[in-house]
Parts: sequence; structure tokens; C-alpha cells
Amino acid sequence: MGMKLYDLAGAEPGRRFSPFCWRIKMALAHKGLEFETIPWRYFDKPLIAQYKWDRVPVLVDDGRGVVDSWTIANYLEDTYGARPSLFGGGAGRALARFFNQWTDAVLNGAISRFVALDIWNHLEPRDRDYFRASREARFGTTLEAYCADREARLPAFRQTLEPLRQTFAAQPFLGGESPLYPDYIVFGSFQWARAVSPFALLEAADPVNAWRERLLRAFGGFAREAPGYW
Amino acid sequence: MGMKLYDLAGAEPGRRFSPFCWRIKMALAHKGLEFETIPWRYFDKPLIAQYKWDRVPVLVDDGRGVVDSWTIANYLEDTYGARPSLFGGGAGRALARFFNQWTDAVLNGAISRFVALDIWNHLEPRDRDYFRASREARFGTTLEAYCADREARLPAFRQTLEPLRQTFAAQPFLGGESPLYPDYIVFGSFQWARAVSPFALLEAADPVNAWRERLLRAFGGFAREAPGYW
Repeated sequence: MGMKLYDLAGAEPGRRFSPFCWRIKMALAHKGLEFETIPWRYFDKPLIAQYKWDRVPVLVDDGRGVVDSWTIANYLEDTYGARPSLFGGGAGRALARFFNQWTDAVLNGAISRFVALDIWNHLEPRDRDYFRASREARFGTTLEAYCADREARLPAFRQTLEPLRQTFAAQPFLGGESPLYPDYIVFGSFQWARAVSPFALLEAADPVNAWRERLLRAFGGFAREAPGYW
Repeated sequence: MGMKLYDLAGAEPGRRFSPFCWRIKMALAHKGLEFETIPWRYFDKPLIAQYKWDRVPVLVDDGRGVVDSWTIANYLEDTYGARPSLFGGGAGRALARFFNQWTDAVLNGAISRFVALDIWNHLEPRDRDYFRASREARFGTTLEAYCADREARLPAFRQTLEPLRQTFAAQPFLGGESPLYPDYIVFGSFQWARAVSPFALLEAADPVNAWRERLLRAFGGFAREAPGYW
């Protein structure tokens, strides 16, 4: 029996925008594991209540639920150790944690200010009030004000990517000649933006964009085939 | 014959403040390799001209000069492969590059604005004019203006360390249970500040400081014995 992944969706079932779910979809593809995704909206919390969790991704493997993207990635590595490694060994697994924290604390925080209103626009109507209220409380302002002046904030955002850019000047992936889980962590954030926002965060000629395109083409191009803008 | 490392020094020969040299001193200690350091000042470029380089670190191993900290770390790993690994394998080596670029682009840029004037204060008189002129041209202002209002900039600096802090909430080192070269990359920047500046960048209770103290105690505590303020 293949795996099932509860995957955050917009009003269109195919529009999948969770950066955390993208990490796991790429990790499953890297492992060559078959999986089906189940579109999940914020109001679908009862669907995953049996796993004692209220967010996605939730992976169900042969009836067993595994929650939280970092935990799921480690579960996949430990359970399917004979398949291509997500971490390349113990050192790679330990070092991957910093990428997880950098992406959550720095990259996602920055991208949020470009895409939060676009997310709202793509949600099922039933999800919209919840999303707006919870995010406006967190951000301390309206979604509209939070995402205003995107053009003006773009140079500072691109500067934030400088460590990625300099790395990709030296090697094609964070993992070296081929991608590892840290690549999928960071890539997930760009898939988040791509899924909901026509506002291109990267210049076409940016080495970060060239890396992103390598991952869009990976595994038969399934990340590129997903609905998205750029 | 032991190795020699040209190591940036202040007016006091023992005051060693280069973050890049600290990376290599920690790497040499990690490998258990004996080395002596040669204090080097900016006006000592003729001493290393034979290696076709004008900055430190320069490592001289049995007459062979190796320059640039990243290149030296890789040289040590490849040449002394039977000794404890700096990278923990190919994946770890590839992932280490991002830490190198993040530290250079983000962390060192931030720390510079706290310590540049303190560096100038610790230099040999002959180095001072060169340092002031080159840095003021780079920064576009005086050293005094560049380093003004340190207290006000401290909260934003500490926020920059959040990915480190969250990582150390989960594991003692970036490398996991024991340090790897990425730990030494980041630690070198704190040794830079410690060597020249009484301005403490970290609160005592910060998990980043607890990690720093673990490395100050490592390898017999040689990093803590080096002249420094905190």
C-alpha cells in the first residue's frame, strides 16, 4: 500500500502551497517512494485528529501517522535506509538542522511578507476568515498592509539569499553534485511562493533561480507540473 | 616537522583576531596536528609573498604553502584523512559550504559593525593607517561612525543568530554530538570579537553562548587561553 500525505491545498484542490509539505513531497520522490496526496484545508483538522496533530504535513505509512516535516524526513531516512539517502550520513543529518532553522526563521519570515495576501486569495472561502484572523493577529497588521510595498522590499530580500547564491556559484546543490534534504527544505519555500503568487521573487539570471529550476526539473518535473506562477 | 600557520596578530603578538585563522586553528586541533603559529601583521605581506597570496591564514606544511581558509580545511581533510574528519563525509563537506558563505556574508558583516574600531585600537601602530583607510573606503564612513550605537543594534544582531539558537536547542553542536568544521567556521567569528572587543555580543544564558563555551573548552581550552575579553 502506498503512502498518503495530507497536503495543504487552496480552493483548487491541485494548488498545493505548504513549504513544509513540499519538503516531504521532494523527500518522498528522492527516496523513490510512491505516495498519494490528500488535499487538506485548514478547516479539515478533524481529518487528522486521529494523529493528535492539527497541521500538515501528516504522512500515513501503512496506517501509521507521522507528523512534523523534520520528524517525517528522519522517519523516511531511518525506515527506508536502503533507498537514496536524504542526509548523506550522520554529519549531513546533523548539519541539515541548521538549514531547517534558517529556512523557518529567516527565509519563510521574509517570503511571508510577499505572499501572505496571495495565499488568502487562493484559499477556500471557508478557510479565509481563519487565515486572516490568525495571521493578522500574528503580524500585528492587516494582510494588505503586511504585504504592501513588495517591490521596495525585493532588494533586501534578494540580499538575504546571498549565502545561497555564493554556494551555488561553487556547486549545483547545497548537497553538492546532487540534492539532499537541505535543498528540499529551501526549495519548499520557493514552491510556496510559486504556488500562490505571480510576484517573481528571483531574477531569471540569479544562480538561486538556476538551482530552483534544476529542482523543478528533478524527478520527472513533478514540482514544475504543480499549479504555480513562475 | 610541524606545520606553521601565519596568524593575524595585533600589537601584542599573542592577540590573534582573524576569524579565518581561528577556523584553521580549530581544524588543526580537531585533526590532532601539531602546529606553531607565526604572528603576522598587515604590513608583513612580504613574508607570505612566496605563496603568491597577501592575506592570512597561510598554512605551511613541510614547505608547501596552502592559502585561503576553505582551501586549507579541504587540504587538511584530504591530506590527513585517517585523522578525525572535519566534515563527516562528502555530504557534510558539501553542506559545510553554506555555513562558510552564511558566516562570511551575514555573521561577519554584522559583527564587523561591533568590533571594527576595537580592531583598530589593538593594531600595531604601523598597521593602523592601512586598516583605517581600507575599511573606511569599504564601509563608506569613519570607523567611529560605523561602530556607533552598538547597544541599539544588539537586539537585531542577536535575532540574526536565531537559526543557531534553535539548532543548539536540539543538539550541542552544528555537527551534532561533536563539532565539525561548520562549528569552527561560526566559532571563529566569535573569537574575532572576543580577541579585540570588551563588548559582549552574547548574553551568558544564550544557548549560542553555551555552545561557544563548549568550544572554548575544547582541545584543552586553547581557544579560551588566547588573549580575549569574554
